[in-house]
Amino acid sequence: MAQLIDGKAIAARIRAEVQADVERLKASRGLVPGLAVVRVGEDPASKIYVTGKKKAAEEVGFHSWEHALGADITQDELLARVRQLNADPAVHGILVQLPLPKHIDAERIIAAVSPEKDVDGFHPVNAGRLSLGQPGLRPCTPFGAMRLLAEVSCAPAGKRAVVVGRSNIVGKPMALMLLQADATVTICHRKSDLPREVAQADILVVAVGVPELIQGEWIKPGAVVIDVGMNRKADGKLVGDVAFQAAAQRASAITPVPGGVGPMTIAMLMRNTFIAASGGV
Amino acid sequence: MAQLIDGKAIAARIRAEVQADVERLKASRGLVPGLAVVRVGEDPASKIYVTGKKKAAEEVGFHSWEHALGADITQDELLARVRQLNADPAVHGILVQLPLPKHIDAERIIAAVSPEKDVDGFHPVNAGRLSLGQPGLRPCTPFGAMRLLAEVSCAPAGKRAVVVGRSNIVGKPMALMLLQADATVTICHRKSDLPREVAQADILVVAVGVPELIQGEWIKPGAVVIDVGMNRKADGKLVGDVAFQAAAQRASAITPVPGGVGPMTIAMLMRNTFIAASGGV
Repeated sequence: MAQLIDGKAIAARIRAEVQADVERLKASRGLVPGLAVVRVGEDPASKIYVTGKKKAAEEVGFHSWEHALGADITQDELLARVRQLNADPAVHGILVQLPLPKHIDAERIIAAVSPEKDVDGFHPVNAGRLSLGQPGLRPCTPFGAMRLLAEVSCAPAGKRAVVVGRSNIVGKPMALMLLQADATVTICHRKSDLPREVAQADILVVAVGVPELIQGEWIKPGAVVIDVGMNRKADGKLVGDVAFQAAAQRASAITPVPGGVGPMTIAMLMRNTFIAASGGV
Repeated sequence: MAQLIDGKAIAARIRAEVQADVERLKASRGLVPGLAVVRVGEDPASKIYVTGKKKAAEEVGFHSWEHALGADITQDELLARVRQLNADPAVHGILVQLPLPKHIDAERIIAAVSPEKDVDGFHPVNAGRLSLGQPGLRPCTPFGAMRLLAEVSCAPAGKRAVVVGRSNIVGKPMALMLLQADATVTICHRKSDLPREVAQADILVVAVGVPELIQGEWIKPGAVVIDVGMNRKADGKLVGDVAFQAAAQRASAITPVPGGVGPMTIAMLMRNTFIAASGGV
């Protein structure tokens, strides 16, 4: 039976580390990191996410501000708000909660955030810095997944890592981070022969949003499995992208859903905001 | 015996296409694309490369300028020159020939080039746009390799592509382009089990700079092989990173060295400069 990777406990530890770092930063430089979260419209899920992020920011000792804007805001008005936050020296991190209303070009808004305050790591400059192996702010979820690997002493160097899913916020940055950590990396998607690819994975990361797509029997014995998926089944139960019970029979370590990768995303957002504030990238 | 992929002939065709496009652009908008090449110091190889690029630019009908600067130029002076070219409306493409002298931070210089004029595709913004699947200027060599695949009717979708080498100018952008074309992509390097990985490649791209590293016997029968390497052996002979004779027995198509990928790089530089001038990204 695989070791459970307790993302909830690890995330709590990271948040405590950030809190201690914030106290040192206050003492040494009189500086308090500030996180501004911009939310547009009344999407209920976005409200919950933003509340969680704001609460976490306050717990680690950041200043935090929520900018709740009406769904009818124009793109130009939103751009103006982003520029105002770019110019505000008390704001070190800016997060624009996605999705945005359809009349707003999300790519344009993301590109307007200063790369040095882009704590989501979604700006093209930060995506480029990651691809080029340069320091920069990294997307929170794959950044957290890398930390989970480290926590179970899984060193990617020389291992075969397989990433299923090629999104801009998880799959592609995850593949680039694993590559930078010297894994041999395969990126898969809907056109891939998944059983064949998964069977070769010493490290498997799945981020596709399809409940239990990855069958336990495909997993290579001893693999470390990071399941980024979070899907609600018809019976209300939360499941990942990996069939957990069967996978746990073969993996050496595996993240549960919930309580695996999920809590890491906010913890790494706190870490990113601290990095942005302290100039530590 | 594999089909030879005649990069020299294909590159000549692309240059002729660009030339025709330039004539149309002149006729329709009175616009002549301009390419500025900046060379620092007296590196003999750089001189040859720059001369070749300038000649190609003139043949397709661009304006072109060579800025030959002394090896003792300061970083600030070079930055000032780049900014001057950024501001010059007659200059649509700027290429800073690498390597630069050691006292100059090449990353800093590349990042100073306007992303819209970065015809090498090396700027973090362009690397980010590629990673995010957004339009942008692409690095010339992998851009050319993708064109070679198209020329032999090799559609990457659903195929297994293996990229050996993970440089910023070939390996990583190549992997991202193949991924965007719906291949399942594996990126390999010195810590990879190359025989195992190469044996699974329907499309194999090698860019490591090690003469004949890839043995012909490793190649999957029917594979398409793109050899980016260009190495001079002790006897003066030019060879690629793939043992050509043996590989050609198994591959369905393969690039020769020289005359494969090499000529494509300058051709795609011409294409990129045209794209930058015409606003066609």
